[in-house]
Amino acid sequence: MNVLLVYAHPEPQSLNGALKDFTVQRLEAAGHTVQVSDLYAMNWKARLDADDSPGRDSTRPFDASLDSKLAFEQGRQAADITAEQAKLLWADTLILQFPLWWFSMPAILKGWVERVYAYGFAYGVGEHSDSRWGDRYGEGTLKGKRAMLMVTAGGWESHYSPRGINGPIDDLLFPIHHGILYYPGFEVLPPFVVYRTGKMDEARFAQTCEELGARLDELWSTRPIGFRRQNAGDYEIPALTLKDDIAPGSEGFAAHLK
Amino acid sequence: MNVLLVYAHPEPQSLNGALKDFTVQRLEAAGHTVQVSDLYAMNWKARLDADDSPGRDSTRPFDASLDSKLAFEQGRQAADITAEQAKLLWADTLILQFPLWWFSMPAILKGWVERVYAYGFAYGVGEHSDSRWGDRYGEGTLKGKRAMLMVTAGGWESHYSPRGINGPIDDLLFPIHHGILYYPGFEVLPPFVVYRTGKMDEARFAQTCEELGARLDELWSTRPIGFRRQNAGDYEIPALTLKDDIAPGSEGFAAHLK
Repeated sequence: MNVLLVYAHPEPQSLNGALKDFTVQRLEAAGHTVQVSDLYAMNWKARLDADDSPGRDSTRPFDASLDSKLAFEQGRQAADITAEQAKLLWADTLILQFPLWWFSMPAILKGWVERVYAYGFAYGVGEHSDSRWGDRYGEGTLKGKRAMLMVTAGGWESHYSPRGINGPIDDLLFPIHHGILYYPGFEVLPPFVVYRTGKMDEARFAQTCEELGARLDELWSTRPIGFRRQNAGDYEIPALTLKDDIAPGSEGFAAHLK
Repeated sequence: MNVLLVYAHPEPQSLNGALKDFTVQRLEAAGHTVQVSDLYAMNWKARLDADDSPGRDSTRPFDASLDSKLAFEQGRQAADITAEQAKLLWADTLILQFPLWWFSMPAILKGWVERVYAYGFAYGVGEHSDSRWGDRYGEGTLKGKRAMLMVTAGGWESHYSPRGINGPIDDLLFPIHHGILYYPGFEVLPPFVVYRTGKMDEARFAQTCEELGARLDELWSTRPIGFRRQNAGDYEIPALTLKDDIAPGSEGFAAHLK
């Protein structure tokens, strides 16, 4: 299988760097092919702007969606965007690896999503009609592929528990799981999260690698998170609210789980 | 009053650009002083890295927290970081204005948070003991100030409703409201959100400005979101879970509202 690891950490000699190296070795030892997009090492351009659409009509204001659409359709995208899209199409599984900074992904990785997820590639795909609202949330360009987050957090696991002060980790990651990965078609696996990274020692690192290794060995058989497909009958269209008889009375992120 | 508007949109001739101009005019007309950090125009550096800590000991690996701490303590931070911290200290109210891209803030703004929120400034502040876990979530450097998000979204309001497919807007914004604004001490006002931006015409723009104007006129009297203070008795320390008798049975983001 082909695995794309998109890695966002500024320091190779870090816990994240060590976990990245372990991941590549484990997957390659199992016979898989791995590509790593090491965003800091690549000096990845984080900001989305008009330079992403070279040759655009500069007599009108830059429009992030429209210019992305035209550049994608007309083959005028910036080369670094095209290269990452090709890696996504090549991959059977995508891993996004990052430290949780201010309860979300680092800016450099957010900028990878914003720029690589072009209109026509990751959104603005498929027909809009009375029964469909584009190919998204369970359909789309990346359908049939799997994705998983590998996340490190300085806080304690209890701080991210259902009644923990930071909010439950599953809810903090929902905008990424559902809004970034499930949206263009990925099946999303439960995340691999390491807490309290300031208290890492050799024994705990070995234990962490063992747990991570088990997850990597099962990438192709792990049951994905059971998000509801947008166009499979659970949602009113175009309101895109859950139908009254679907999870009646339930609200919030969890209502979108089967 | 002093207002800092941190603005993250690549195109001045856009809905966001127009709303930014309206905001500055409205606040200045009311006698307030406004500073705008126009991140795209400033060519703001989005990625957090070792260059943020000039003069650091480069014989050891870069550590995002430790190097931030030392640079802040020793007055060695990058100049653009120091300048933004000074603006935050000057401001009575902070407004973060941005288009919702992939259900969160644009990368360039996320990078503003990551770099400006230094250790010792926005986190790592205050004592840790049996009764306190640092000055955060209701205390901290920015206590006594107010903050509000101004957000535009392409999707419909129903898509962001309690049973809408994208998840409720209040939950999508919780990591910013609670994790980025309340954390270092801001009182957080309800957000100003404009939906379905692709369907904006003159009449709707005028109506939007009227609603926004009313919010700006009431910045100093609007009741903040009632988040629970970390060190005021509702949480176990150090587990930082809600005590059993606080909102019993309640879980998730909403449990952290009084």
